[in-house]
Amino acid sequence: MDSERLEKQMAFIVEIGKTKQVLRRTMVIGTDRHENDAEHSWHLAMMAILLAEYAESESVDILKVLKMVLVHDLVEIYAGDTYCYDEEGAKDKIERETRAADRIFAMLPDDQSREMRALWDEFEDMITPEARFANALDRLQPLLLNYHSGGETWQKYRVTSDRVLKRAQPVAEHMPGIWEFAAGLIRDAVEQGFLAE
Amino acid sequence: MDSERLEKQMAFIVEIGKTKQVLRRTMVIGTDRHENDAEHSWHLAMMAILLAEYAESESVDILKVLKMVLVHDLVEIYAGDTYCYDEEGAKDKIERETRAADRIFAMLPDDQSREMRALWDEFEDMITPEARFANALDRLQPLLLNYHSGGETWQKYRVTSDRVLKRAQPVAEHMPGIWEFAAGLIRDAVEQGFLAE
Repeated sequence: MDSERLEKQMAFIVEIGKTKQVLRRTMVIGTDRHENDAEHSWHLAMMAILLAEYAESESVDILKVLKMVLVHDLVEIYAGDTYCYDEEGAKDKIERETRAADRIFAMLPDDQSREMRALWDEFEDMITPEARFANALDRLQPLLLNYHSGGETWQKYRVTSDRVLKRAQPVAEHMPGIWEFAAGLIRDAVEQGFLAE
Repeated sequence: MDSERLEKQMAFIVEIGKTKQVLRRTMVIGTDRHENDAEHSWHLAMMAILLAEYAESESVDILKVLKMVLVHDLVEIYAGDTYCYDEEGAKDKIERETRAADRIFAMLPDDQSREMRALWDEFEDMITPEARFANALDRLQPLLLNYHSGGETWQKYRVTSDRVLKRAQPVAEHMPGIWEFAAGLIRDAVEQGFLAE
């Protein structure tokens, strides 16, 4: 056994546990606490399994999608969660997250470091069918949570329906079979008065 | 689009979010709070990806392992988390969890209900190479967390090293390349005085 290799893998596994402490803006349904990145990533993985039939491309590689959604937020351990409607934070988001990716993936043995970095890059580039599907899920999940939390986060940050619709565009593009459902949630939230027009 | 099918899938996705509220005995490293099942399942999935090379069988199907670890604790939404050293709770654990499985997976369309239930049964039966690897990970992860939390949970529940060793046996059997490392953590915890002999 290569003990240096195993030590690196275990140190990485312990370090990424910090994902459980990175809070998102979204609330956990039925609670008054924020969701963290580990919970969010688990939920996305379950959605990838259950909603694979709605992916744009029929030949989407679900193993790759799962790896991608499980890994996509690790950089936030160092870069923090940037709220999707935060224009100030968006300015240096790429730079902050790239530095974080350099740092976190360097902990792994070279082959795994390259694999994990490639998954993160692929997710961010949003070009392959797997990355498009993964990104669409990443937009659909908070919409579901915000809707079922009575729009608490939308109201707190004064988000309007046009911005929610724009943010959800990858769902329309890459999971067209889901779009009617997703747009229906947004319409209903406006009608019920917990999302401003 | 079959809207009844999609409605069932979405209702299930919302329901399983409750996994985020099922607390385990294990602490999140570096915090004073308990880990929940969603975080635990995410961590197991990352370990499955990173430690696949140590699985007993070289031909282990990682996609199936990922699905299994992501799904294995869903029954605890209704059955609750049974602490692994709780002999009283162990008595009716199988009955409680089987009832919970009947209930949660019935929410899905038939084909997916059968797939999810089969994954859960396979994990519990611990016979296939995938189930053995998944179960070994499920024993290794809390060991890592308890060790790096200074044995807080071990002390609170007066767990002794022989019971921890016994509980970790699937690691010895199904991830032999990891066993020296895992047993080393247990020895070190005893030497440092935060796990009783």
